Amino acid sequence: MISKKMEPLVKNSSVIRAMFEEGTKMKALYGEENVFDFSLGNPNVPAPKEVKDAILDIIETEDPVKVHGYMNNAGFIETRQAIADHLNRLHGTDFDARNLIMTVGAGSALNVTLKTILDPGDEVLTFAPYFVEYGNYVANYDGKLVVVPPNLENFMPDIEKMKEMITPETKVVIINNPHNPTGVVYPEEVIEKLSKALEDKEKELGTVIYLLVDEPYRELVYGGRTVPYVTKYYKNTIVAYSYSKSLSLPGERIGYIVIPDESDESEDFIEAATIANRVSGAVNAPSLIQLVIQRCVDAEADVEFYRQNGEILYNGLTEAGFECLRPEGAFYLWVKSPEPDDKAFVNKGKKYNILMVPGTSFACPGYVRLAYCVSKETCENSIPKFKELAKEYNL
Amino acid sequence: MISKKMEPLVKNSSVIRAMFEEGTKMKALYGEENVFDFSLGNPNVPAPKEVKDAILDIIETEDPVKVHGYMNNAGFIETRQAIADHLNRLHGTDFDARNLIMTVGAGSALNVTLKTILDPGDEVLTFAPYFVEYGNYVANYDGKLVVVPPNLENFMPDIEKMKEMITPETKVVIINNPHNPTGVVYPEEVIEKLSKALEDKEKELGTVIYLLVDEPYRELVYGGRTVPYVTKYYKNTIVAYSYSKSLSLPGERIGYIVIPDESDESEDFIEAATIANRVSGAVNAPSLIQLVIQRCVDAEADVEFYRQNGEILYNGLTEAGFECLRPEGAFYLWVKSPEPDDKAFVNKGKKYNILMVPGTSFACPGYVRLAYCVSKETCENSIPKFKELAKEYNL
Repeated sequence: MISKKMEPLVKNSSVIRAMFEEGTKMKALYGEENVFDFSLGNPNVPAPKEVKDAILDIIETEDPVKVHGYMNNAGFIETRQAIADHLNRLHGTDFDARNLIMTVGAGSALNVTLKTILDPGDEVLTFAPYFVEYGNYVANYDGKLVVVPPNLENFMPDIEKMKEMITPETKVVIINNPHNPTGVVYPEEVIEKLSKALEDKEKELGTVIYLLVDEPYRELVYGGRTVPYVTKYYKNTIVAYSYSKSLSLPGERIGYIVIPDESDESEDFIEAATIANRVSGAVNAPSLIQLVIQRCVDAEADVEFYRQNGEILYNGLTEAGFECLRPEGAFYLWVKSPEPDDKAFVNKGKKYNILMVPGTSFACPGYVRLAYCVSKETCENSIPKFKELAKEYNL
Repeated sequence: MISKKMEPLVKNSSVIRAMFEEGTKMKALYGEENVFDFSLGNPNVPAPKEVKDAILDIIETEDPVKVHGYMNNAGFIETRQAIADHLNRLHGTDFDARNLIMTVGAGSALNVTLKTILDPGDEVLTFAPYFVEYGNYVANYDGKLVVVPPNLENFMPDIEKMKEMITPETKVVIINNPHNPTGVVYPEEVIEKLSKALEDKEKELGTVIYLLVDEPYRELVYGGRTVPYVTKYYKNTIVAYSYSKSLSLPGERIGYIVIPDESDESEDFIEAATIANRVSGAVNAPSLIQLVIQRCVDAEADVEFYRQNGEILYNGLTEAGFECLRPEGAFYLWVKSPEPDDKAFVNKGKKYNILMVPGTSFACPGYVRLAYCVSKETCENSIPKFKELAKEYNL
């Protein structure tokens, strides 16, 4: 009775579940502290104190009918204005509450955006390696995900290849910055080159190509890096944001979409996306947490915690002989598998109680991803294990 | 650039917005207390005290990494178990945590269910008058909504007509009990007759027909009525529930799906629905509010408040000469339009600052809906206005 579209997902999910259950079993067998689980992107840092203070204050002082009630499907206007003001302060943009739609996390922000614009058969381009859910999200609206092969030199988007692969059916290009799973940050010159390429293609084909920027890791950058705010470079940019990582609220499902005034048909887009938010069944982003965000727009993520973890792993693994990308942002270490078969490498890691995700899961075989949103101890204590693992490969 | 599927929704939405803006304008012009706005189903009762206490307790005592973190996409197991136990206590059912999937409200519960089982072209039956979003939800998965005409005698589902309209393509029948927009409650004999008819049809056609029961108003019933728990009558029942009305939490987007063990392919269904919850972009129901629900499963709705409002309006309008259904549940009064054109009647109401929704919006012309989840004063003060309106029709 299961829908034909869901069937392959059910099959694939049993593989993920088996992996997850293996981890649970290992932890039960060896003790949680002796398993080095780098497989999940679930922040291990508590939400900043401002979140707790905001919840208590709202619950004690605000009218519960408002706090827990319906609002405009796009979200509380005060929350959207507070975020717009915050973005304008930081990036010199010129957003207003109307340019923002509050969503049930970035997952919903991406879905609402795709639902708003995709017709069956429309093509959505993204760059390998990429977050595997993009494929499911695009399939939800019968679009076709087209994957630009990975640029193994530096894992920046392969813009020349993208230009070759754009067709009149290309409606959206998705980028993720800072990047999951590689931990790279696309700098200004890459965004400029990408924008120029898309503008040229729009002119050449006479089409509109939206650049959908998925940036849940925006604040998690190291070494004084900044993440370009893409609406300033390319007018048909749509931003999908989430507070899951920056404020450690992944379970709360709170994020937003930015649709700038200068984007093509922005008024219709805003209206349609607000309706898509409603008819998707979400209706609106959770109300109490919207009010929390309004009071916490300037709260800061614990970037230093993640930076330290990244450094511990990068230094330890490099010393052990592994080839890694030095993390620039997000909380992922991207490691070259010492054998071509990344799944075999992941399996060998399990002998040392190390859990990693094969690059194959991100359409980039030959690499593995370590998510270091775990405790510092887990990172530190894993290094001797990685050294043993390295010996198996004579590194 | 807007998706072809979204275009008609955008057009239709401007009509709704115009209506909403007219109400706002009227309130600005005449003062809020002089406008009798019965158009929206947004509860005016604050959440019970247990909700506030639960939030404060969780925030003060629980680990924030858990409170705001990811859990299984189906929801916290403790929350699901607490709800299962609650249902078992009340209804003598035999549910376990595994039978429940926490969702972003009933809107998401209905969408996740339909996404799980609908293939393009599958038929979904429902009974007029019906909640207009059903059509949008079914269209999200390229299903076909088939509407059984209204039973104007007593607004119970027309089961004989349903039997005629079921085809081999019918995968789902949706009912809503207590009922929006009529305020009727389907009693046990109706549920028994409906179940028997569906069983017969399943046998006759050799198909599985899921009965999707949308029951956000379950607790809002008057006069000692009870709402049959449908899984006990028909094995292929799926329940979609929401705390929006019972605990006045509509903005929080919290609800669940029940998939009983005895339903066909229940294991696959549960697995697929959990994945559908994830890939829809919702990922999971909001985490803090899940933990609140766990502590508030026995909290009670303020039924008496709604009952009184319903009685004030029913008595007042009947006295004025209107024909109304006496409310049995939910918070809607269903009134026969004194002229065949219900939209014209709604327009005449506006002259007296009365806002109602035409039955046409529920596929049942000739009637109007009054949502009485408003203040008692609004109900009381509206009666003289309804009497003036009645005079226009010489009632």
